Amino acid sequence: MKSIAYLGPSGSYCEQATITKYPDQKLFPMATIPAVIESVQDGITDYGIVPIENSIEGSVTFTLDALIHDYKVNINSEIMLNISHSLITNKIIEMSKIEKIYSHPQALAQCKLYLSKNTPQAQLINTSSTSAALKQIIDDGITSAAIAHARNAKLNNLNIIEENIQDEKINITRFVVLGNEIAPKTENDKTSFCFDFSDIDKPGQLINVMKLFSDQEINITKIESRPSKKELGKYIFWMDITGHIEQQKLSGIFVQVKKITSMLKIIGSYPVETEII
Amino acid sequence: MKSIAYLGPSGSYCEQATITKYPDQKLFPMATIPAVIESVQDGITDYGIVPIENSIEGSVTFTLDALIHDYKVNINSEIMLNISHSLITNKIIEMSKIEKIYSHPQALAQCKLYLSKNTPQAQLINTSSTSAALKQIIDDGITSAAIAHARNAKLNNLNIIEENIQDEKINITRFVVLGNEIAPKTENDKTSFCFDFSDIDKPGQLINVMKLFSDQEINITKIESRPSKKELGKYIFWMDITGHIEQQKLSGIFVQVKKITSMLKIIGSYPVETEII
Repeated sequence: MKSIAYLGPSGSYCEQATITKYPDQKLFPMATIPAVIESVQDGITDYGIVPIENSIEGSVTFTLDALIHDYKVNINSEIMLNISHSLITNKIIEMSKIEKIYSHPQALAQCKLYLSKNTPQAQLINTSSTSAALKQIIDDGITSAAIAHARNAKLNNLNIIEENIQDEKINITRFVVLGNEIAPKTENDKTSFCFDFSDIDKPGQLINVMKLFSDQEINITKIESRPSKKELGKYIFWMDITGHIEQQKLSGIFVQVKKITSMLKIIGSYPVETEII
Repeated sequence: MKSIAYLGPSGSYCEQATITKYPDQKLFPMATIPAVIESVQDGITDYGIVPIENSIEGSVTFTLDALIHDYKVNINSEIMLNISHSLITNKIIEMSKIEKIYSHPQALAQCKLYLSKNTPQAQLINTSSTSAALKQIIDDGITSAAIAHARNAKLNNLNIIEENIQDEKINITRFVVLGNEIAPKTENDKTSFCFDFSDIDKPGQLINVMKLFSDQEINITKIESRPSKKELGKYIFWMDITGHIEQQKLSGIFVQVKKITSMLKIIGSYPVETEII
Protein backbone atom coordinates (compact mmCIF):
# COMPACT_ATOMS: atom_id res chain seq x y z
CA MET A 1 0.00 0.00 0.00
CA LYS A 2 1.34 3.45 -0.98
CA SER A 3 1.02 6.63 1.08
CA ILE A 4 -0.36 9.62 -0.81
CA ALA A 5 -0.57 13.26 0.30
CA TYR A 6 -3.14 15.46 -1.41
CA LEU A 7 -4.50 19.00 -1.16
CA GLY A 8 -7.23 18.65 1.45
CA PRO A 9 -9.19 18.94 3.53
CA SER A 10 -11.35 15.89 3.02
CA GLY A 11 -14.16 16.71 0.61
CA SER A 12 -11.96 18.78 -1.73
CA TYR A 13 -11.92 18.21 -5.50
CA CYS A 14 -8.34 17.05 -5.08
CA GLU A 15 -9.54 14.37 -2.66
CA GLN A 16 -12.18 13.32 -5.18
CA ALA A 17 -9.46 12.97 -7.85
CA THR A 18 -7.18 11.11 -5.44
CA ILE A 19 -9.78 8.63 -4.18
CA THR A 20 -11.06 7.88 -7.69
CA LYS A 21 -7.54 7.20 -9.01
CA TYR A 22 -6.18 5.50 -5.86
CA PRO A 23 -9.15 3.93 -4.05
CA ASP A 24 -7.15 1.58 -1.82
CA GLN A 25 -4.13 3.60 -0.67
CA LYS A 26 -3.24 5.44 2.52
CA LEU A 27 -4.33 9.06 1.99
CA PHE A 28 -3.14 12.17 3.86
CA PRO A 29 -4.95 15.49 3.35
CA MET A 30 -2.56 18.46 3.57
CA ALA A 31 -3.45 22.10 4.17
CA THR A 32 -1.42 23.68 1.38
CA ILE A 33 0.16 22.88 -2.00
CA PRO A 34 3.74 23.34 -0.63
CA ALA A 35 2.92 20.93 2.24
CA VAL A 36 1.91 18.25 -0.30
CA ILE A 37 5.07 18.77 -2.38
CA GLU A 38 7.31 18.83 0.68
CA SER A 39 5.89 15.56 2.02
CA VAL A 40 6.96 13.90 -1.25
CA GLN A 41 10.37 15.57 -1.45
CA ASP A 42 11.13 14.66 2.18
CA GLY A 43 10.00 11.04 1.68
CA ILE A 44 7.20 11.30 4.25
CA THR A 45 4.71 10.06 1.63
CA ASP A 46 5.35 8.09 -1.56
CA TYR A 47 3.27 10.42 -3.73
CA GLY A 48 1.54 13.78 -3.60
CA ILE A 49 -1.38 15.10 -5.67
CA VAL A 50 -1.99 18.77 -6.47
CA PRO A 51 -4.02 20.69 -9.08
CA ILE A 52 -1.96 22.17 -11.93
CA GLU A 53 -4.40 23.45 -14.58
CA ASN A 54 -8.07 24.18 -15.12
CA SER A 55 -9.82 24.47 -18.49
CA ILE A 56 -11.32 27.87 -17.58
CA GLU A 57 -8.86 29.56 -15.24
CA GLY A 58 -5.64 28.28 -16.79
CA SER A 59 -2.61 27.16 -14.84
CA VAL A 60 -2.53 26.94 -11.06
CA THR A 61 0.42 29.33 -10.94
CA PHE A 62 1.14 28.49 -7.30
CA THR A 63 1.85 24.86 -8.31
CA LEU A 64 3.91 25.84 -11.38
CA ASP A 65 6.00 28.34 -9.42
CA ALA A 66 6.60 25.88 -6.55
CA LEU A 67 7.77 23.18 -9.00
CA ILE A 68 9.92 25.69 -10.93
CA HIS A 69 11.57 27.51 -8.02
CA ASP A 70 11.24 25.69 -4.73
CA TYR A 71 11.21 21.89 -5.02
CA LYS A 72 12.86 18.97 -6.81
CA VAL A 73 10.18 16.33 -7.38
CA ASN A 74 8.90 14.56 -10.52
CA ILE A 75 5.49 14.52 -12.10
CA ASN A 76 4.68 10.78 -12.34
CA SER A 77 1.16 10.87 -13.82
CA GLU A 78 -1.85 13.13 -14.32
CA ILE A 79 -5.57 12.96 -13.43
CA MET A 80 -8.34 14.76 -15.34
CA LEU A 81 -11.38 15.55 -13.17
CA ASN A 82 -14.69 16.99 -14.32
CA ILE A 83 -15.67 19.88 -11.99
CA SER A 84 -19.21 20.99 -11.18
CA HIS A 85 -19.88 23.80 -8.69
CA SER A 86 -23.06 24.35 -6.65
CA LEU A 87 -24.27 27.34 -4.62
CA ILE A 88 -24.96 26.00 -1.13
CA THR A 89 -26.48 27.48 2.03
CA ASN A 90 -27.18 26.21 5.51
CA LYS A 91 -30.98 26.71 5.25
CA ILE A 92 -33.33 27.79 2.45
CA ILE A 93 -32.76 31.52 1.73
CA GLU A 94 -33.33 33.95 -1.16
CA MET A 95 -30.22 34.69 -3.21
CA SER A 96 -30.63 38.43 -2.62
CA LYS A 97 -30.28 37.85 1.15
CA ILE A 98 -26.85 36.19 0.90
CA GLU A 99 -24.21 38.43 2.50
CA LYS A 100 -21.06 36.29 2.27
CA ILE A 101 -19.97 33.58 -0.14
CA TYR A 102 -17.08 31.35 0.84
CA SER A 103 -15.04 29.18 -1.49
CA HIS A 104 -11.60 28.42 -2.85
CA PRO A 105 -10.45 31.44 -4.95
CA GLN A 106 -10.41 29.37 -8.15
CA ALA A 107 -14.01 28.20 -7.58
CA LEU A 108 -15.09 31.81 -6.95
CA ALA A 109 -13.29 32.85 -10.15
CA GLN A 110 -14.97 30.09 -12.15
CA CYS A 111 -18.42 31.33 -11.08
CA LYS A 112 -17.69 35.07 -11.31
CA LEU A 113 -20.26 35.94 -14.01
CA TYR A 114 -22.96 33.90 -12.24
CA LEU A 115 -22.17 35.56 -8.89
CA SER A 116 -21.97 39.11 -10.28
CA LYS A 117 -25.40 38.55 -11.89
CA ASN A 118 -27.18 36.70 -9.07
CA THR A 119 -25.49 37.81 -5.85
CA PRO A 120 -23.83 41.18 -6.58
CA GLN A 121 -24.37 42.22 -2.94
CA ALA A 122 -22.37 39.37 -1.46
CA GLN A 123 -18.80 39.64 -0.17
CA LEU A 124 -16.59 36.90 -1.66
CA ILE A 125 -14.28 35.28 0.89
CA ASN A 126 -11.44 32.90 0.06
CA THR A 127 -11.08 29.63 1.90
CA SER A 128 -8.32 27.04 1.58
CA SER A 129 -10.72 24.60 -0.12
CA THR A 130 -14.35 24.16 -1.09
CA SER A 131 -14.90 21.89 1.91
CA ALA A 132 -13.48 24.53 4.26
CA ALA A 133 -16.15 26.81 2.75
CA LEU A 134 -18.86 24.33 3.76
CA LYS A 135 -17.51 24.17 7.33
CA GLN A 136 -17.63 27.96 7.41
CA ILE A 137 -21.34 28.21 6.49
CA ILE A 138 -22.19 25.55 9.08
CA ASP A 139 -20.50 27.78 11.70
CA ASP A 140 -21.84 31.06 10.29
CA GLY A 141 -25.37 32.50 10.34
CA ILE A 142 -27.95 31.76 7.65
CA THR A 143 -26.86 34.61 5.34
CA SER A 144 -23.64 32.84 4.34
CA ALA A 145 -23.27 30.64 1.27
CA ALA A 146 -20.55 28.36 -0.09
CA ILE A 147 -19.55 27.14 -3.54
CA ALA A 148 -18.67 23.46 -3.52
CA HIS A 149 -19.61 20.14 -5.09
CA ALA A 150 -23.26 19.13 -4.57
CA ARG A 151 -22.15 15.72 -3.27
CA ASN A 152 -20.52 17.34 -0.23
CA ALA A 153 -23.56 19.51 0.45
CA LYS A 154 -25.71 16.38 0.53
CA LEU A 155 -23.26 14.61 2.86
CA ASN A 156 -23.63 17.55 5.27
CA ASN A 157 -27.44 17.92 4.85
CA LEU A 158 -27.04 21.44 3.47
CA ASN A 159 -29.36 23.33 1.10
CA ILE A 160 -28.42 23.38 -2.60
CA ILE A 161 -29.69 26.60 -4.23
CA GLU A 162 -28.42 25.70 -7.72
CA GLU A 163 -26.14 23.08 -9.26
CA ASN A 164 -23.63 23.49 -12.10
CA ILE A 165 -23.29 27.26 -11.67
CA GLN A 166 -19.80 27.67 -13.17
CA ASP A 167 -19.65 30.15 -16.07
CA GLU A 168 -18.36 27.63 -18.59
CA LYS A 169 -20.13 24.29 -18.56
CA ILE A 170 -17.01 22.38 -19.66
CA ASN A 171 -14.82 22.59 -16.57
CA ILE A 172 -11.98 20.12 -16.19
CA THR A 173 -9.14 20.28 -13.69
CA ARG A 174 -5.86 18.52 -14.35
CA PHE A 175 -4.08 17.20 -11.25
CA VAL A 176 -0.51 15.87 -11.19
CA VAL A 177 0.80 12.99 -9.13
CA LEU A 178 4.26 13.85 -7.76
CA GLY A 179 6.98 11.36 -6.77
CA ASN A 180 10.75 11.17 -6.38
CA GLU A 181 11.47 8.87 -9.37
CA ILE A 182 10.93 9.35 -13.09
CA ALA A 183 7.92 7.31 -14.22
CA PRO A 184 8.74 4.35 -16.54
CA LYS A 185 8.28 4.77 -20.30
CA THR A 186 4.91 3.81 -21.84
CA GLU A 187 3.42 3.94 -25.35
CA ASN A 188 2.08 7.50 -24.90
CA ASP A 189 4.03 9.85 -22.64
CA LYS A 190 4.58 13.56 -22.19
CA THR A 191 7.46 15.48 -20.61
CA SER A 192 7.21 18.69 -18.58
CA PHE A 193 10.21 20.99 -18.19
CA CYS A 194 11.13 24.62 -17.61
CA PHE A 195 13.96 26.85 -18.77
CA ASP A 196 15.07 30.44 -19.11
CA PHE A 197 17.61 32.57 -20.95
CA SER A 198 20.33 34.82 -19.56
CA ASP A 199 19.94 37.45 -22.31
CA ILE A 200 16.31 38.54 -22.41
CA ASP A 201 16.56 40.85 -25.37
CA LYS A 202 17.87 38.47 -28.00
CA PRO A 203 14.98 37.77 -30.37
CA GLY A 204 14.32 34.23 -31.51
CA GLN A 205 15.70 32.40 -28.46
CA LEU A 206 12.38 30.82 -27.53
CA ILE A 207 11.77 29.87 -31.15
CA ASN A 208 15.13 28.12 -31.29
CA VAL A 209 14.09 25.90 -28.37
CA MET A 210 10.67 25.19 -29.88
CA LYS A 211 12.18 24.43 -33.27
CA LEU A 212 14.42 21.73 -31.78
CA PHE A 213 11.21 19.84 -30.97
CA SER A 214 9.02 20.70 -33.96
CA ASP A 215 11.80 19.89 -36.44
CA GLN A 216 11.59 16.31 -35.11
CA GLU A 217 7.76 16.29 -35.26
CA ILE A 218 7.48 16.45 -31.47
CA ASN A 219 4.32 18.27 -30.43
CA ILE A 220 4.42 21.06 -27.84
CA THR A 221 1.15 20.60 -25.92
CA LYS A 222 1.56 23.45 -23.44
CA ILE A 223 3.69 26.58 -23.20
CA GLU A 224 3.42 28.97 -20.30
CA SER A 225 5.53 31.95 -19.27
CA ARG A 226 6.00 32.55 -15.57
CA PRO A 227 7.74 35.58 -14.08
CA SER A 228 11.37 35.03 -13.10
CA LYS A 229 10.47 37.11 -10.00
CA LYS A 230 13.70 39.04 -10.55
CA GLU A 231 12.53 41.72 -12.98
CA LEU A 232 9.44 42.61 -15.01
CA GLY A 233 9.61 41.21 -18.53
CA LYS A 234 12.02 38.37 -17.67
CA TYR A 235 10.27 35.01 -17.86
CA ILE A 236 10.81 31.34 -17.14
CA PHE A 237 9.08 29.14 -19.71
CA TRP A 238 7.19 25.94 -18.83
CA MET A 239 6.63 23.45 -21.67
CA ASP A 240 4.87 20.13 -22.04
CA ILE A 241 5.92 18.05 -25.05
CA THR A 242 4.97 14.58 -26.27
CA GLY A 243 7.43 11.76 -25.53
CA HIS A 244 9.55 10.39 -22.68
CA ILE A 245 12.92 11.80 -21.63
CA GLU A 246 14.45 8.29 -21.83
CA GLN A 247 13.70 8.06 -25.56
CA GLN A 248 16.97 8.49 -27.42
CA LYS A 249 15.48 11.11 -29.75
CA LEU A 250 14.27 13.27 -26.86
CA SER A 251 17.36 12.99 -24.69
CA GLY A 252 19.37 14.08 -27.74
CA ILE A 253 17.20 17.16 -28.17
CA PHE A 254 17.53 18.06 -24.51
CA VAL A 255 21.34 18.09 -24.87
CA GLN A 256 20.78 20.82 -27.50
CA VAL A 257 18.22 22.67 -25.32
CA LYS A 258 20.70 22.75 -22.44
CA LYS A 259 23.27 24.44 -24.70
CA ILE A 260 21.02 27.36 -25.65
CA THR A 261 19.29 27.97 -22.30
CA SER A 262 20.55 29.44 -19.04
CA MET A 263 18.58 27.07 -16.77
CA LEU A 264 16.88 23.78 -17.71
CA LYS A 265 14.88 21.66 -15.25
CA ILE A 266 13.03 18.48 -16.19
CA ILE A 267 9.85 18.25 -14.08
CA GLY A 268 8.84 14.77 -15.25
CA SER A 269 8.04 12.27 -18.00
CA TYR A 270 4.71 10.52 -17.47
CA PRO A 271 1.82 8.80 -19.29
CA VAL A 272 -0.71 11.03 -21.08
CA GLU A 273 -4.08 10.63 -19.33
CA THR A 274 -6.92 10.37 -21.85
CA GLU A 275 -9.81 9.52 -19.51
CA ILE A 276 -11.77 12.27 -17.72
CA ILE A 277 -13.18 11.03 -14.42
CA MET B 1 -9.48 67.69 -19.49
CA LYS B 2 -9.85 63.94 -20.04
CA SER B 3 -12.03 61.60 -17.99
CA ILE B 4 -10.25 58.48 -16.74
CA ALA B 5 -11.73 55.41 -15.04
CA TYR B 6 -9.41 53.29 -12.90
CA LEU B 7 -9.60 50.27 -10.61
CA GLY B 8 -10.49 51.81 -7.26
CA PRO B 9 -11.39 52.47 -4.63
CA SER B 10 -9.38 55.57 -3.86
CA GLY B 11 -6.10 54.60 -2.22
CA SER B 12 -5.51 51.61 -4.51
CA TYR B 13 -2.18 51.06 -6.28
CA CYS B 14 -4.05 51.65 -9.53
CA GLU B 15 -5.09 55.08 -8.25
CA GLN B 16 -1.48 55.80 -7.35
CA ALA B 17 -0.41 54.89 -10.90
CA THR B 18 -3.26 56.94 -12.38
CA ILE B 19 -2.66 60.10 -10.32
CA THR B 20 1.10 60.01 -10.91
CA LYS B 21 0.66 59.66 -14.68
CA TYR B 22 -2.42 61.93 -15.02
CA PRO B 23 -2.28 64.46 -12.17
CA ASP B 24 -4.75 66.95 -13.64
CA GLN B 25 -7.52 64.87 -15.16
CA LYS B 26 -11.01 63.88 -14.06
CA LEU B 27 -10.66 60.52 -12.29
CA PHE B 28 -13.37 57.92 -11.64
CA PRO B 29 -12.66 54.97 -9.33
CA MET B 30 -14.51 51.81 -10.46
CA ALA B 31 -15.24 48.72 -8.37
CA THR B 32 -14.07 46.06 -10.85
CA ILE B 33 -11.80 45.57 -13.86
CA PRO B 34 -14.76 44.92 -16.23
CA ALA B 35 -16.42 48.14 -15.00
CA VAL B 36 -13.28 50.12 -15.99
CA ILE B 37 -13.10 48.46 -19.42
CA GLU B 38 -16.84 48.91 -20.06
CA SER B 39 -16.72 52.61 -19.20
CA VAL B 40 -14.13 53.04 -21.98
CA GLN B 41 -15.87 50.83 -24.52
CA ASP B 42 -19.21 52.58 -23.91
CA GLY B 43 -17.60 56.04 -24.20
CA ILE B 44 -18.52 57.03 -20.63
CA THR B 45 -14.87 57.89 -19.94
CA ASP B 46 -12.07 58.70 -22.40
CA TYR B 47 -9.61 56.25 -20.85
CA GLY B 48 -9.48 53.42 -18.34
CA ILE B 49 -6.53 52.10 -16.32
CA VAL B 50 -6.20 48.51 -15.08
CA PRO B 51 -3.30 46.31 -13.86
CA ILE B 52 -2.10 43.75 -16.43
CA GLU B 53 1.10 42.20 -15.05
CA ASN B 54 3.21 41.98 -11.92
CA SER B 55 6.88 41.05 -11.75
CA ILE B 56 6.22 38.36 -9.09
CA GLU B 57 2.74 37.03 -9.73
CA GLY B 58 2.76 37.21 -13.52
CA SER B 59 -0.18 38.31 -15.63
CA VAL B 60 -3.42 39.60 -14.18
CA THR B 61 -5.35 36.88 -15.98
CA PHE B 62 -8.69 38.60 -15.30
CA THR B 63 -7.51 41.60 -17.39
CA LEU B 64 -6.03 39.44 -20.18
CA ASP B 65 -9.17 37.27 -20.42
CA ALA B 66 -11.48 40.31 -20.45
CA LEU B 67 -9.46 41.96 -23.26
CA ILE B 68 -9.28 38.66 -25.19
CA HIS B 69 -12.88 37.48 -24.87
CA ASP B 70 -15.23 40.21 -23.74
CA TYR B 71 -14.31 43.70 -24.92
CA LYS B 72 -13.06 45.67 -27.93
CA VAL B 73 -10.81 48.44 -26.63
CA ASN B 74 -7.19 49.44 -27.34
CA ILE B 75 -4.19 49.61 -25.09
CA ASN B 76 -2.93 53.19 -25.57
CA SER B 77 0.00 53.29 -23.14
CA GLU B 78 1.48 51.56 -20.12
CA ILE B 79 2.52 52.60 -16.60
CA MET B 80 5.17 50.84 -14.49
CA LEU B 81 4.64 51.25 -10.73
CA ASN B 82 6.95 50.13 -7.94
CA ILE B 83 4.91 48.26 -5.29
CA SER B 84 5.73 48.05 -1.57
CA HIS B 85 3.42 46.24 0.87
CA SER B 86 3.11 46.85 4.62
CA LEU B 87 1.40 44.83 7.37
CA ILE B 88 -1.02 47.21 9.05
CA THR B 89 -3.29 46.99 12.12
CA ASN B 90 -5.72 49.31 13.85
CA LYS B 91 -3.76 49.37 17.14
CA ILE B 92 -0.41 47.95 18.29
CA ILE B 93 -0.72 44.15 18.55
CA GLU B 94 1.60 41.14 18.52
CA MET B 95 1.74 39.33 15.18
CA SER B 96 0.78 36.03 16.86
CA LYS B 97 -2.52 37.60 17.98
CA ILE B 98 -3.67 38.50 14.45
CA GLU B 99 -6.70 36.40 13.49
CA LYS B 100 -7.65 37.81 10.07
CA ILE B 101 -5.61 39.49 7.34
CA TYR B 102 -7.45 41.39 4.63
CA SER B 103 -6.04 42.42 1.26
CA HIS B 104 -6.37 42.16 -2.49
CA PRO B 105 -5.67 38.52 -3.51
CA GLN B 106 -2.56 39.54 -5.48
CA ALA B 107 -1.12 41.42 -2.48
CA LEU B 108 -1.78 38.38 -0.25
CA ALA B 109 -0.08 36.18 -2.84
CA GLN B 110 2.93 38.50 -3.03
CA CYS B 111 3.45 38.22 0.74
CA LYS B 112 2.62 34.51 1.09
CA LEU B 113 6.03 33.35 2.42
CA TYR B 114 6.17 36.24 4.90
CA LEU B 115 2.63 35.50 6.10
CA SER B 116 3.08 31.74 6.36
CA LYS B 117 6.22 32.37 8.48
CA ASN B 118 4.98 35.23 10.67
CA THR B 119 1.21 34.84 10.88
CA PRO B 120 0.45 31.16 10.12
CA GLN B 121 -2.58 31.29 12.44
CA ALA B 122 -4.34 34.07 10.50
CA GLN B 123 -7.21 33.58 8.05
CA LEU B 124 -6.51 35.36 4.73
CA ILE B 125 -9.53 37.22 3.37
CA ASN B 126 -9.77 38.73 -0.11
CA THR B 127 -10.92 42.28 -0.60
CA SER B 128 -11.51 44.16 -3.84
CA SER B 129 -8.47 46.40 -3.20
CA THR B 130 -5.83 47.16 -0.59
CA SER B 131 -7.75 50.25 0.50
CA ALA B 132 -10.91 48.19 1.02
CA ALA B 133 -8.75 46.06 3.33
CA LEU B 134 -7.87 49.16 5.40
CA LYS B 135 -11.55 50.10 5.68
CA GLN B 136 -12.25 46.57 6.92
CA ILE B 137 -9.72 46.72 9.79
CA ILE B 138 -11.07 50.11 10.86
CA ASP B 139 -14.52 48.48 11.14
CA ASP B 140 -13.24 45.20 12.64
CA GLY B 141 -11.85 44.44 16.10
CA ILE B 142 -8.16 44.80 16.97
CA THR B 143 -7.20 41.26 15.88
CA SER B 144 -7.58 42.10 12.18
CA ALA B 145 -4.73 43.24 9.93
CA ALA B 146 -4.46 44.53 6.36
CA ILE B 147 -1.77 44.52 3.70
CA ALA B 148 -1.54 47.85 1.89
CA HIS B 149 0.84 50.69 1.11
CA ALA B 150 2.33 52.41 4.18
CA ARG B 151 1.26 55.80 2.80
CA ASN B 152 -2.41 54.89 3.13
CA ALA B 153 -1.91 53.54 6.66
CA LYS B 154 -0.41 56.89 7.68
CA LEU B 155 -3.29 58.80 6.06
CA ASN B 156 -5.69 56.78 8.23
CA ASN B 157 -3.56 56.95 11.43
CA LEU B 158 -3.18 53.18 11.49
CA ASN B 159 -0.37 51.12 13.03
CA ILE B 160 2.35 49.84 10.66
CA ILE B 161 3.79 46.56 11.99
CA GLU B 162 6.33 46.18 9.18
CA GLU B 163 7.04 47.81 5.81
CA ASN B 164 8.20 46.20 2.57
CA ILE B 165 7.01 42.70 3.52
CA GLN B 166 6.56 41.29 0.00
CA ASP B 167 8.52 38.09 -0.64
CA GLU B 168 10.52 39.54 -3.53
CA LYS B 169 11.92 42.99 -2.95
CA ILE B 170 11.70 43.92 -6.65
CA ASN B 171 7.96 44.24 -7.16
CA ILE B 172 6.71 46.17 -10.16
CA THR B 173 3.17 46.25 -11.52
CA ARG B 174 2.48 47.15 -15.12
CA PHE B 175 -0.80 48.99 -15.74
CA VAL B 176 -2.34 49.63 -19.16
CA VAL B 177 -4.24 52.71 -20.25
CA LEU B 178 -7.23 51.69 -22.41
CA GLY B 179 -8.94 53.83 -25.04
CA ASN B 180 -11.05 53.49 -28.17
CA GLU B 181 -8.44 54.66 -30.69
CA ILE B 182 -5.06 53.22 -31.67
CA ALA B 183 -2.28 55.35 -30.15
CA PRO B 184 -0.15 57.31 -32.68
CA LYS B 185 3.21 55.93 -33.75
CA THR B 186 6.31 56.99 -31.76
CA GLU B 187 10.03 56.11 -31.91
CA ASN B 188 9.68 53.12 -29.55
CA ASP B 189 6.39 51.21 -29.61
CA LYS B 190 5.09 47.76 -28.83
CA THR B 191 2.02 45.91 -30.10
CA SER B 192 -0.17 43.52 -28.10
CA PHE B 193 -2.34 40.94 -29.85
CA CYS B 194 -3.91 37.53 -29.34
CA PHE B 195 -4.65 34.58 -31.63
CA ASP B 196 -5.52 30.92 -31.68
CA PHE B 197 -5.53 27.93 -34.03
CA SER B 198 -8.41 25.73 -35.12
CA ASP B 199 -6.32 22.53 -35.19
CA ILE B 200 -4.69 22.10 -31.80
CA ASP B 201 -2.66 19.01 -32.61
CA LYS B 202 -0.60 20.31 -35.51
CA PRO B 203 2.95 20.81 -34.22
CA GLY B 204 4.85 23.93 -35.14
CA GLN B 205 1.89 26.29 -35.58
CA LEU B 206 2.94 28.62 -32.80
CA ILE B 207 6.53 28.59 -34.06
CA ASN B 208 5.34 29.59 -37.52
CA VAL B 209 3.71 32.69 -36.04
CA MET B 210 6.76 33.54 -33.93
CA LYS B 211 9.12 33.01 -36.85
CA LEU B 212 7.22 35.59 -38.94
CA PHE B 213 8.39 38.16 -36.40
CA SER B 214 11.86 36.90 -35.51
CA ASP B 215 12.80 36.46 -39.19
CA GLN B 216 12.37 40.24 -39.48
CA GLU B 217 14.35 40.88 -36.25
CA ILE B 218 11.18 41.87 -34.38
CA ASN B 219 11.48 41.00 -30.70
CA ILE B 220 8.72 39.11 -28.89
CA THR B 221 8.73 40.67 -25.41
CA LYS B 222 5.88 38.62 -23.91
CA ILE B 223 4.11 35.37 -24.71
CA GLU B 224 1.32 34.01 -22.57
CA SER B 225 -1.09 31.13 -23.11
CA ARG B 226 -4.61 31.55 -21.78
CA PRO B 227 -7.25 28.81 -21.79
CA SER B 228 -9.74 28.98 -24.66
CA LYS B 229 -12.34 28.07 -21.98
CA LYS B 230 -13.73 25.53 -24.45
CA GLU B 231 -11.55 22.50 -23.67
CA LEU B 232 -8.49 21.60 -21.61
CA GLY B 233 -5.29 21.89 -23.64
CA LYS B 234 -6.70 24.39 -26.17
CA TYR B 235 -5.10 27.82 -25.72
CA ILE B 236 -5.34 31.38 -26.93
CA PHE B 237 -1.92 33.03 -27.15
CA TRP B 238 -1.20 36.61 -26.09
CA MET B 239 1.94 38.24 -27.51
CA ASP B 240 3.69 41.57 -27.12
CA ILE B 241 6.14 42.48 -29.88
CA THR B 242 8.24 45.56 -30.57
CA GLY B 243 6.91 47.98 -33.19
CA HIS B 244 3.68 49.74 -34.21
CA ILE B 245 0.91 48.12 -36.27
CA GLU B 246 0.98 51.08 -38.68
CA GLN B 247 4.60 50.38 -39.66
CA GLN B 248 4.55 48.86 -43.13
CA LYS B 249 6.82 46.00 -42.07
CA LEU B 250 4.53 45.01 -39.19
CA SER B 251 1.24 45.34 -41.03
CA GLY B 252 2.71 43.09 -43.74
CA ILE B 253 3.59 40.44 -41.16
CA PHE B 254 0.11 40.60 -39.64
CA VAL B 255 -1.41 39.78 -43.05
CA GLN B 256 0.64 36.56 -42.89
CA VAL B 257 -0.33 35.91 -39.24
CA LYS B 258 -4.00 36.21 -40.16
CA LYS B 259 -3.59 33.52 -42.82
CA ILE B 260 -2.20 30.89 -40.43
CA THR B 261 -4.35 31.58 -37.37
CA SER B 262 -8.02 30.94 -36.67
CA MET B 263 -8.62 34.15 -34.70
CA LEU B 264 -6.44 37.28 -34.58
CA LYS B 265 -7.22 40.34 -32.44
CA ILE B 266 -4.97 43.40 -32.15
CA ILE B 267 -5.24 44.77 -28.60
CA GLY B 268 -3.14 47.87 -29.22
CA SER B 269 0.06 49.57 -30.41
CA TYR B 270 1.52 51.96 -27.83
CA PRO B 271 4.75 53.56 -26.60
CA VAL B 272 7.13 51.39 -24.54
CA GLU B 273 7.32 52.85 -21.00
CA THR B 274 10.87 52.86 -19.70
CA GLU B 275 10.40 54.81 -16.47
CA ILE B 276 9.31 53.09 -13.24
CA ILE B 277 7.37 55.46 -11.00
